[in-house]
Amino acid sequence: MKFILTDTDPQSKARAGIIKTDHGDIETPIFMPVGTAGSVKAVHQRELTYDVKAQIILGNTYHLYLRPGLDVLEKVGGLHKFNGWSKPILTDSGGYQVFSLAGTRKITEEGVVFKSHIDGSKHIFSPEGVMDIQRTIGADIIMAFDECTPYPCEFGYARNSMEMTHRWLKRCIERFDQTEGKYGYSQTLFPIVQGSVFKDLRKQSAEFIASCEREGNAIGGLSVGEPAEMMYEMTDMVTDILPKDKPRYLMGVGTPANILEGIALGVDMFDCVMPTRNARNGMLFTSEGIINIRNEKWKDDFSPIDTGINSYVSSFYSKAYLRHLTIAKEILAAQIASIHNLAFYLWLVGQAREKIKSGEFSTWKDQMVKKVSTRL
Amino acid sequence: MKFILTDTDPQSKARAGIIKTDHGDIETPIFMPVGTAGSVKAVHQRELTYDVKAQIILGNTYHLYLRPGLDVLEKVGGLHKFNGWSKPILTDSGGYQVFSLAGTRKITEEGVVFKSHIDGSKHIFSPEGVMDIQRTIGADIIMAFDECTPYPCEFGYARNSMEMTHRWLKRCIERFDQTEGKYGYSQTLFPIVQGSVFKDLRKQSAEFIASCEREGNAIGGLSVGEPAEMMYEMTDMVTDILPKDKPRYLMGVGTPANILEGIALGVDMFDCVMPTRNARNGMLFTSEGIINIRNEKWKDDFSPIDTGINSYVSSFYSKAYLRHLTIAKEILAAQIASIHNLAFYLWLVGQAREKIKSGEFSTWKDQMVKKVSTRL
Repeated sequence: MKFILTDTDPQSKARAGIIKTDHGDIETPIFMPVGTAGSVKAVHQRELTYDVKAQIILGNTYHLYLRPGLDVLEKVGGLHKFNGWSKPILTDSGGYQVFSLAGTRKITEEGVVFKSHIDGSKHIFSPEGVMDIQRTIGADIIMAFDECTPYPCEFGYARNSMEMTHRWLKRCIERFDQTEGKYGYSQTLFPIVQGSVFKDLRKQSAEFIASCEREGNAIGGLSVGEPAEMMYEMTDMVTDILPKDKPRYLMGVGTPANILEGIALGVDMFDCVMPTRNARNGMLFTSEGIINIRNEKWKDDFSPIDTGINSYVSSFYSKAYLRHLTIAKEILAAQIASIHNLAFYLWLVGQAREKIKSGEFSTWKDQMVKKVSTRL
Repeated sequence: MKFILTDTDPQSKARAGIIKTDHGDIETPIFMPVGTAGSVKAVHQRELTYDVKAQIILGNTYHLYLRPGLDVLEKVGGLHKFNGWSKPILTDSGGYQVFSLAGTRKITEEGVVFKSHIDGSKHIFSPEGVMDIQRTIGADIIMAFDECTPYPCEFGYARNSMEMTHRWLKRCIERFDQTEGKYGYSQTLFPIVQGSVFKDLRKQSAEFIASCEREGNAIGGLSVGEPAEMMYEMTDMVTDILPKDKPRYLMGVGTPANILEGIALGVDMFDCVMPTRNARNGMLFTSEGIINIRNEKWKDDFSPIDTGINSYVSSFYSKAYLRHLTIAKEILAAQIASIHNLAFYLWLVGQAREKIKSGEFSTWKDQMVKKVSTRL
């Protein structure tokens, strides 16, 4: 993997660049649709390419490890071959999912013992094991095994957790560097900054992560319920420390406004379930603002969903038709809304990239944050 | 509407033709995907056109009347404008749905009083009302309001019901002929042969329907639980009576084998929820036979779903990936399986049409019935 920083905004920390992988280039800043179990929910791979214009998607280690399982993934030659998505893939480490299984998991220095949510079977995730699993899944970008602390979180817990995450990172790096990709293309490992909402912990963690000198770095443990201002403050501190010549990934963020603010703070990569999950609940993000498509006001609004983002699906279907499908619980509602929301997110980061390149990012961003946060 | 009969099979009653409508031509024999509430479940309109290669789809009067409602449909200019499907549409009369609401409906000579399954509100469907509703929905082909008798059914009930269906038909025709299409294109009314599984009733009904001299005729009340042989026997009798120069529509049929046998008996049009409903349960119809995609045997079968039918989706995704999506309850499973099954049904009737044209239908049909009924 190689990162080329091409442009920087004069009035903020926003930057544009290109991440080069063996599965193609990623133009940053970028949003990565989440494909937990090997499918971006309700969206065909062809639609991801041509309608959403996704450049990289996520997979989830925990889910893919349990289903379809590593035997299937190794036999077919990795996730790209399995699901037919030939562009880059990033995998979550599965730590977030495993830690969420409160009551059925046990954390030790060695790793986490947990029970499958599917059949109750017992498994262990260790830093080494999770590297091996992600090697087998075949992601282009592999995430370190970390603990994502909840919010709020006691200082002592956050410090101990961060220190364990750092010790685990050393083990991740050692294992990753001793192994090779299984399918002939190169993979890279991103470490993750933790430290909850404590400035000194975030500083300490960012310095440690920077010192590891990997090809890209991530910021975890944010967007877990803390106020947005706190998230921005932590991100701002951390991007001051993380190296400028490596891509920075703010995990699990966020709303369109969060993403624009993140870009202004020097973040290059984002992922979030919000565009697809909210789509399934009838919430649309558009270039004019936020729509609850279930509202009566859209009943006879036969105008297209959003003509502002140059997406076929968003221009083809009307608000009234999508409202009808949503209320009638038709599967097509989830399909249309998911494609639209993702196309909007990709359009938004694409616009941000253009504005960074033309030097107009900061002014545009302030206007856009207001617009995309308006409820129509 | 105009029907041009172009070819007849020398060894069976199979025929090929073209139905010309203001929304384009339909090449027969044809299968019509069911889009109950204005959407063929889990399939985009673009996919219906380019992947499924559908030439006409169904809508349902009962469902569309309740949701989105006639006010919305009239305001937008009909169902084609509402859902963006610009090829022909046929609407069920809603009779089948209304009669299924046992306990909440009351049948009189005037019509049927029923309660909405959505909010319990009270409505009445009469022959005249149902014509007006279908005029407003804007279907190219409108179905008469009939009673579809259940199976088994007492002779007396079947006779009385058939006689009422005939009286209702007269009222349908009178109302239809006194009114005009609302959106500038022409609509046509198909009467429906009833009579359960009683030969003399079927004969009587077919003769009455034929005497009405409409532009096309339908056979209803079959595929409701009776043995397939009985359905074929009734169909055979009825197609001997219905005029040769009008298209014949066998309602709600059926399996791939049922459709091939129906074509051999002189039927031109079919519809059924089976390809989409069964798709959502993991049952695939392929050119090699029937697949239960949940079976362990497909776990690591990375071959495409079906390369025999010239469909992008069926060639792009593997059986193993579709199995994984089905078991993981991913929405994409329903999407892929629905497109595939519909593409298969359209491929099958397209093949039948070619074989009729080349004079090889009967031999091919016998082989194909075995093949498509095989469980893989």
